Amino acid sequence: MTASSTFQVYDTTLRDGAQQEGLSLSVADKLTIATHLDDLGVGFIEGGWPGAIPKDTEFFRRAASELSLRTAQLAAFGATRKAGVAAADDPQVRALVDSLAPVVTLVAKSDIRHVERALRTSGAENLAMVRDTVAFLVAEGRQVFLDAEHFFDGYRTDPAYALEVARVAVEAGAQVVALCDTNGGMLPSAIADVVHAVGQATGAPLGIHCHNDTGCAVANSLAAVAAGVVQVQGTLNGYGERTGNADLLAVVANLELKLGHRVLPEGKLAEATRIAHAVSEITNVPPYSRQPYVGASAFAHKAGLHASAIKVDPDLYQHADPTTVGNDMRMLVSDMAGRASIELKGRELGYDLAGQGDLVTRITERVKSLEAAGYTFEAADASFELLLREEADGVRPGYFDVESWRVITESRPGVDALSEATVKLLAGGARQVAVGEGNGPVNALDQALRGALLPVYPELAKLQLVDFKVRILDASSGTDAVTRVLIETADARGTWTTVGVGANLVEASWQALVDGLTYGLLRAAVTPR
Amino acid sequence: MTASSTFQVYDTTLRDGAQQEGLSLSVADKLTIATHLDDLGVGFIEGGWPGAIPKDTEFFRRAASELSLRTAQLAAFGATRKAGVAAADDPQVRALVDSLAPVVTLVAKSDIRHVERALRTSGAENLAMVRDTVAFLVAEGRQVFLDAEHFFDGYRTDPAYALEVARVAVEAGAQVVALCDTNGGMLPSAIADVVHAVGQATGAPLGIHCHNDTGCAVANSLAAVAAGVVQVQGTLNGYGERTGNADLLAVVANLELKLGHRVLPEGKLAEATRIAHAVSEITNVPPYSRQPYVGASAFAHKAGLHASAIKVDPDLYQHADPTTVGNDMRMLVSDMAGRASIELKGRELGYDLAGQGDLVTRITERVKSLEAAGYTFEAADASFELLLREEADGVRPGYFDVESWRVITESRPGVDALSEATVKLLAGGARQVAVGEGNGPVNALDQALRGALLPVYPELAKLQLVDFKVRILDASSGTDAVTRVLIETADARGTWTTVGVGANLVEASWQALVDGLTYGLLRAAVTPR
Repeated sequence: MTASSTFQVYDTTLRDGAQQEGLSLSVADKLTIATHLDDLGVGFIEGGWPGAIPKDTEFFRRAASELSLRTAQLAAFGATRKAGVAAADDPQVRALVDSLAPVVTLVAKSDIRHVERALRTSGAENLAMVRDTVAFLVAEGRQVFLDAEHFFDGYRTDPAYALEVARVAVEAGAQVVALCDTNGGMLPSAIADVVHAVGQATGAPLGIHCHNDTGCAVANSLAAVAAGVVQVQGTLNGYGERTGNADLLAVVANLELKLGHRVLPEGKLAEATRIAHAVSEITNVPPYSRQPYVGASAFAHKAGLHASAIKVDPDLYQHADPTTVGNDMRMLVSDMAGRASIELKGRELGYDLAGQGDLVTRITERVKSLEAAGYTFEAADASFELLLREEADGVRPGYFDVESWRVITESRPGVDALSEATVKLLAGGARQVAVGEGNGPVNALDQALRGALLPVYPELAKLQLVDFKVRILDASSGTDAVTRVLIETADARGTWTTVGVGANLVEASWQALVDGLTYGLLRAAVTPR
Repeated sequence: MTASSTFQVYDTTLRDGAQQEGLSLSVADKLTIATHLDDLGVGFIEGGWPGAIPKDTEFFRRAASELSLRTAQLAAFGATRKAGVAAADDPQVRALVDSLAPVVTLVAKSDIRHVERALRTSGAENLAMVRDTVAFLVAEGRQVFLDAEHFFDGYRTDPAYALEVARVAVEAGAQVVALCDTNGGMLPSAIADVVHAVGQATGAPLGIHCHNDTGCAVANSLAAVAAGVVQVQGTLNGYGERTGNADLLAVVANLELKLGHRVLPEGKLAEATRIAHAVSEITNVPPYSRQPYVGASAFAHKAGLHASAIKVDPDLYQHADPTTVGNDMRMLVSDMAGRASIELKGRELGYDLAGQGDLVTRITERVKSLEAAGYTFEAADASFELLLREEADGVRPGYFDVESWRVITESRPGVDALSEATVKLLAGGARQVAVGEGNGPVNALDQALRGALLPVYPELAKLQLVDFKVRILDASSGTDAVTRVLIETADARGTWTTVGVGANLVEASWQALVDGLTYGLLRAAVTPR
């Protein structure tokens, strides 16, 4: 495998991926996804459009203090200056500088029809807008990439103009001109021809940005790489508007496994499946089981007659070793892999399970059966750690014993609905009964649970419920649908996620709440009282 | 567009597509899908493996009397004769003849490793098996195609042997040798090289059969067509084992719309969206909204700033006219909504808002303020339509007036949590009070609401709550978090989505429930009672 230190893997999940119908990311979601992308080892994370979208401005503000990226650099996305305004005086351009992102990706029109009909300015002014904005940002110390929007359509209409946009950007200091198939209608052979021609004509370092409208986004990206681009853009799980963007993990896996072209730091590709699944928990977009490389079905075999042959000669029946992308051929009960990944995850959490065969077996079996029932531990590390500790120590940390709980939510004319919860439990050697009110059943339960526990565990005052997510899973075997709840809890040092599953949304939430507070006490090294 | 009378579109949904994890087709399902495929105008429908799978034997038996195909021919799939047995004496080969299918597609090993390790016979015997079986079936009056299994892997290992399999088949009378990327690991450039080389070396008419393990099945199929194959195989909606087969509709749409190569009878491509959706109803595999060309999101635009430009010049913003594949352009009403996109969306729903400036202003303002409060109309068309009608008509449809509601969720030791709801409302001129139980608060409310309304609106019995999604939105400016609930409701004709927002999850769900049932009554043209 040839390693390439200069090839750039550029992720735009947080900006272009977020354009997907029905997908909506909070700032906290975006920060978490950015951390996953950094774990994957991408070179660039496009965080959003500061100045245009308030949530994105906030993302960059928080990223500056809260994210510590190891591999990736943050890129802010924005447009060239407005017609007739100096770049320095355009508040949208200033917002890019103020974002403090080391990289700025400027989107520019390269199709003369869009310049004239959508932007309603002249070709010459558009070129000046590109030149000025790039030069201004370079002078401000930023690394600048140009996203040449509608490039392929523009090149077909007026190749000279499209080329001129690329030339002007590079002359002004842009380091890469990414050719965008914005409408997504291209096929690989035409992509290759245009990339080749543009490279020849301009000498510019090029990138590629594809959409999947012809079902060819991955192949189009590969064709562009073969034709010489040095940067490939895409999104996790192929999220994006319409049919989505190029699926970055599939592009990267093909480059590394099929074309011998290493584009991620060594060993990182094996994180692909874990990260793809963790991110779909965050986006609340159900994972696509047929997704290449990382889908639950990607290495699932209908065994039948071939089972023994597959066991002897797996290479004859699969195009790649699934472990190279962190996936698994077996897919028995769950998509969480077997013993090896339990060991790995344990190590990640600070438990050395090597040599403890029985314990690993017990944990693996329990994870498998819980995941078959709808739990997910990919996105709920805290619940996994509680499970691991329980198996390792033989008992659950005994902070409290729940007796019963109840929530009433009521709406009367002209008044906002209110929820009221009652919790009864044993803690600190006594029976504790507390009532809590909240603007929803989970908040009310959270209040009541804290109310019952605070006299015994004042440490809980520092804990905060910061997010919860609900997903309805329809069980595979004809039983009733179940609800999965993920709850994120925070203390001063950080956040953790716990999972609850059940036919009843409120009960599933309760489980996740209880786990969340229990983990918070453990984390603070509180002794059961 | 060049019409090609000899190019063959070969569908294998009923055989290879049915290998998909979780997909199971009855004989009746297969007959219905075959009719849809014939409507689409494919040349060949591979119906299954008679003699090996009893359901498939039955399919061919019933097809002979029940199907009257206009364009397509049925193909029976089967294996070459067993080693050491005459073709005429092999019951599996006889079953192919007995199926009465005019076409037989024989699968044969072309990878010497599979011949020796899986089939456990010699290379020479395998060639004889191919030769004998093809010749026998041709003598029986069948048109024979050969599916050369694992061809690309085989060609890499031992090109001479792989080529020999193709040559022997054609010499014995096979009309097409379809090269199968059985493990799905190929990329377009390598596919093109091999197809070209095999065509040169054997002169055989070739076909292509791709799987999507690298995310390139569509592009691989197109690369093979460019390299000269005369038959392309694929499945509806890309169904198939692992990551699926080549999505036949995307391949065909690309050939016709992008490459000017007509491969279906004139006008048939416009059936694509209807058929893709009808077939997913039969398979009960949820349609994939991001599916190229035919997905619900394939031509959906987040309107925002560009809505007015899209209205004037749709061609600048979409890669193909959606009507060519029977799909529609959809405008998503989003938080960047402007007047133009509201107008467009109204037109899509059958309301002509042009010239009604005041009304458009009122709707736009309301959408903006509701979206600022956390609503989303992008995914909730039904709620948007209710809002639009309310503004247009001045009132909400008055099916019922809610007085109050309450839900209690309770958990006691050793018993599953249960929810119980009470709803009080006015409908049909009387006060209605009903109680509902459910495995969660929303189900309980749904039950109680229906219980209260059914005496007045028996039409509601046909409506079903099919999905609900919950999302916690973190407010940007320090106010409390709000909950957004999306509820999907179905009747016999389809589904619609409504949205509710509030500080209280249960209240937000209630709003979405009420809107969902209200829209269902409106849709069924029920008059308020």
